[in-house]
This record gives sequence, C-alpha cells and structure tokens, in this order.
Amino acid sequence: MNTPVRFYFDFSSPYSYIASAWIDALAARHGRTVDRQAILLGVTFQAAELKSPVAYPIKRDYSVRDFARSARFHGLPCRLPEPFPIPTQNAARIFWWLKDTRGEAAAAEWARAGLAAVFQRGLPLNDAATLKAVAAGAGLDADAAEAVWNDPVWKDRLKRANEEAIAAGVFGAPFFIVDGEPFWGNDRQPQIERWLSSGPF
Amino acid sequence: MNTPVRFYFDFSSPYSYIASAWIDALAARHGRTVDRQAILLGVTFQAAELKSPVAYPIKRDYSVRDFARSARFHGLPCRLPEPFPIPTQNAARIFWWLKDTRGEAAAAEWARAGLAAVFQRGLPLNDAATLKAVAAGAGLDADAAEAVWNDPVWKDRLKRANEEAIAAGVFGAPFFIVDGEPFWGNDRQPQIERWLSSGPF
Repeated sequence: MNTPVRFYFDFSSPYSYIASAWIDALAARHGRTVDRQAILLGVTFQAAELKSPVAYPIKRDYSVRDFARSARFHGLPCRLPEPFPIPTQNAARIFWWLKDTRGEAAAAEWARAGLAAVFQRGLPLNDAATLKAVAAGAGLDADAAEAVWNDPVWKDRLKRANEEAIAAGVFGAPFFIVDGEPFWGNDRQPQIERWLSSGPF
Repeated sequence: MNTPVRFYFDFSSPYSYIASAWIDALAARHGRTVDRQAILLGVTFQAAELKSPVAYPIKRDYSVRDFARSARFHGLPCRLPEPFPIPTQNAARIFWWLKDTRGEAAAAEWARAGLAAVFQRGLPLNDAATLKAVAAGAGLDADAAEAVWNDPVWKDRLKRANEEAIAAGVFGAPFFIVDGEPFWGNDRQPQIERWLSSGPF
C-alpha cells in the first residue's frame, strides 16, 4: 500500500514551512510520494469555528517564540513577515495552476519557494509586486502568474481545495493524511514516521 | 544551573497524563528534578480567552483520536472518562495539600495515581465517592482527603496556583518551564530534551 502522503499547508503557516522541509525526505525514506494541497487556514478555521493561535494575545506571544524555536530545532532559519499572518490566496492559486497544469514537482517547488520567501526573507506575499518578484525568482512568468491569481478558474480551484480539505476533516495546518489517518501539526513528525515505517499503531 | 523543571498539569488533561509518564525520567537523565504544579485548565483557558480543543466539534473528533494514538505512541494505555472533560478541582486541592505538607514526592505520587485513575480506568474523579476510593487506593486517608477539598485553605491554595500559572504565561497543559523557557504540550518532549542536554537553542 503505497498511497501518497497528503500534506495540507498554507503559505502563511510557519509550522507548514517547517514541515515542508522534512516531509519529502521522510516520505521518500518509506517509498512514498507527497501530495501537497495548498489551502487557506482562515477558511478551515472558520468552518471548524476556530481562530488562529496568534488571534489570542497570550497564546500569540508563546506561538511567535515557539515558531522560531521550532524552526531552530529543525535547523531552519525563521523570520516572520510584518504584519503576520498575511492573506495568501494568490500564492495558493499559483500553486493549483502549477499542480494541475505542470504536475506535483512544479507545484512543490513553488510551495517551497513561496514558504521560503515568507519565512526566510519575511516577504509580504500578499503584496502583488512582491508576489510577482517571488514568482519570477522561482522561474515563473510573473505576468502569467498574476493573470492566474485573477482568473476565476483558479479562484474556483482553490475554493474547491478548501472545501475538500474541510470535508476531509482538516482544521489546521500543516495537516497530513496517511492511509486515511489524520495527523495535525509539525510536531506529529515522529508519529508519521512510525506509521510509515511500521504501519498503524 | 540545576533548576527544577516546572511541570503544570490538570488531572483532566490526557496529554498531561502522557507527559507525567516521561517527565521524571527525562529530568533525572539531565540531573534535574520536577516541580509539579496542579492547575485548572479551565481557569487558564478563560484567562487567555481560549477554550478546550474538545469544545469544538471538528477538533474534538480529531483530538479524541489523537489522545489515544499519542498514548499508544508512548506505550501507555488510554481511556477517556465519560463524560469528558471532568472538573478536577478536588483532586488538585489534595495535590497541593500533599505538596505543601508532605513534599514533592508525595504530591507526584498522587498526581500519577489520579491521572491513572482517570486515563487508565476511566474513573470520574469529580465524583466524591470515586475520588475518596482513589485516594484510599493511593494510601491516603479518604476522610482527610475529603476534608481537604472542602477546606478554604486548600481551595485558596489552588486558586493561588492558578493565578501564579497565568502570571507565568501558562495557557494550556501540559506546560513546562525550563530555565525560564516555556514549552507547551506533550509534543515538546524532544525540544525539552535538547534544551536539557545541550542548553538553549
């Protein structure tokens, strides 16, 4: 049974940024591929009647500290854009355009480039000029990328991805589904590893 | 610098039950002791304007599954009392009575006994007769324990513990403070281990 590991992420989620750095190697070690799904956390939060951890002042202080520490724990640089979080629907629409027209590898490359832009360079991916520059830096045609995020086709595609995620029980990011089993959070890495190496537990 | 590891827990928190099973050995491996603090999660949630994960239907479904899976991951049995969660102020008052009058070891033993009663046997620790039986089973005088949880002195002691926890930034459980650094959640075990073995990162 070699179904892909489904990996839901949001371009504005620091823990998704961290998970994006280990999920491919982890899956590959166990003969799996990764099926990335760009979603909007805000939409899944709303469906589950939740709010972002950074919407609560006390939890926000801890979370910002924990983002940075967790990144260091995984050997990654971490910087938060200012303001944070930012709306990332345009970056997500580019993701779906690439996934549906060029395949998983191109979409994964864009996911990594977008997450690195936000969390290594602190760039506001919600700003059109910034996003175009990041797209160009990732080897994409910046004008084509801008046309994509304004295109109802790709707006609908992202909407459908959000709806499918909600239907699958996703209420946060990163969120993983492995052989039908849901795992929420970057910190479920050891459990996912055990599942992939020795099966259900 | 051998300050104790401060470990905040609630008798009704499954992840506190799991953490209670590893924190002492982990601390001991690095020459540390554990300073347990029984608190009421509901009070810290309220102070931080949060709610329990099981207060949200979609998150509840996942959480109940994750509690059990996380316990198995750590090699522990796990059963939830019905209903869940339950109010645990009486068990927490017994904890503070033991901690203040007999010391950390007696309090830790009670913490383990109470958590095991809830999460291994599914017992409703909020029920007076059940709590007295659990106290007796843990070698305590059941009538003395009942007198403690009705005594304003120990009610105030727990209240103070909650206030001190909130002042220290605690908004969930398990919550750890190591050398002033806050760690929230059973899944911060690897980060706590790294901190204890090689210092701040």
